[in-house]
Amino acid sequence: MVIRYPNGKLYESAPNKESKKEASKSPTVAKEAKKRAVSYSNRGKSLEDDLNETNLFYLQRNLANIHKKPVPIQIVKVDYPARSAAVIKEAYFRTPSTTDYNGVWNGYYIDFEAKETDSKTSFPLKNIHPHQISHMESVSNQRGIAFFIIRFSTLKRNFVISYNVVAKSFQAMHEGGRKSMPLAVFEQYAIEIQEGYLPRLDYLQAVKKLIADTDVCESEEK
Amino acid sequence: MVIRYPNGKLYESAPNKESKKEASKSPTVAKEAKKRAVSYSNRGKSLEDDLNETNLFYLQRNLANIHKKPVPIQIVKVDYPARSAAVIKEAYFRTPSTTDYNGVWNGYYIDFEAKETDSKTSFPLKNIHPHQISHMESVSNQRGIAFFIIRFSTLKRNFVISYNVVAKSFQAMHEGGRKSMPLAVFEQYAIEIQEGYLPRLDYLQAVKKLIADTDVCESEEK
Repeated sequence: MVIRYPNGKLYESAPNKESKKEASKSPTVAKEAKKRAVSYSNRGKSLEDDLNETNLFYLQRNLANIHKKPVPIQIVKVDYPARSAAVIKEAYFRTPSTTDYNGVWNGYYIDFEAKETDSKTSFPLKNIHPHQISHMESVSNQRGIAFFIIRFSTLKRNFVISYNVVAKSFQAMHEGGRKSMPLAVFEQYAIEIQEGYLPRLDYLQAVKKLIADTDVCESEEK
Repeated sequence: MVIRYPNGKLYESAPNKESKKEASKSPTVAKEAKKRAVSYSNRGKSLEDDLNETNLFYLQRNLANIHKKPVPIQIVKVDYPARSAAVIKEAYFRTPSTTDYNGVWNGYYIDFEAKETDSKTSFPLKNIHPHQISHMESVSNQRGIAFFIIRFSTLKRNFVISYNVVAKSFQAMHEGGRKSMPLAVFEQYAIEIQEGYLPRLDYLQAVKKLIADTDVCESEEK
């Protein structure tokens, strides 16, 4: 969706399917579009939409209370016009210090990051920031449930994968290992979720399995 | 000092000490001053600072992982200057749909709102939005730990008070009851916390007590 502003400049709002299609035609444009997408929300838009709708579904039915955190902004200049709302006139995107989603289900603290990839074969680890890994490690230490929701957009496949598995691949990469996680790793270690109508992406079912598996592991350790 | 003006009306000249005292008591002036404070940050600044420092202290020592959520912003216009960071040129503050702080401690989901009041006698309930109460109810239903941190700035006293107690007062207000919670209610039902150096406001100790009390109540109910 392109909006023409009074100054005559074009402003492209959040990247949608149309612009993505166009972008995919040229590598340069694709790169630019990706850059822009990153500066908006750090990921493709549609997974975010699906998760927001799913979270609303959970909230309204008292199934869980999970929200996307607002994008952190550094506000530099605000105008206070008389008798109307304050207008932010200058601000910048800041790097988030946590993951994007958190909340509570049945007494469990839920914390995750959602990422999309166009690749058909592997998930590039450059999509994940070191601060997200360290945040999730801290969450795990506090006995929270930390995971990633990874969408292979082209394949239309979605996975819930424990923070631990991703952290191991991340660590291996920093020790000279491969820079992406093969699809096969997801097929073996992640829980696949199907897209649906209501909710759009019922990841909570996968999280329940994840928790059950973790509890079993912890019992075995004892 | 009273001056009689040509129009025959009385005009009281520069306010002396007496009238200043009166002004500070005047509800209109107080209201205006409060409005201005509210439009800046929705609460006094120092409680937020103390909590941010305390949360950093907890995080760095692996005691808890609790963060303030970014202020939600509706972004309308973004410029992308060549070779530099995107600049937000027009944006508006949005009403948050949740509380400001959440995170995890020892497997417990922690969720709270922080508010300050200048009053020496009671906490005005107009500082709390209905959506915060319904959010906290939902959190409680999911077995999260929901509470308020209330600072009586003038008295330099800080309280951690369970969501339940505030919700009851809030409900009573909507049924025609009083519009504020007397200090005595806090002294009876809340846990007082002392300001310190490191951490500045060790609210986690109070939250542990809150959880212990809740667990006892739940056991008794069984």
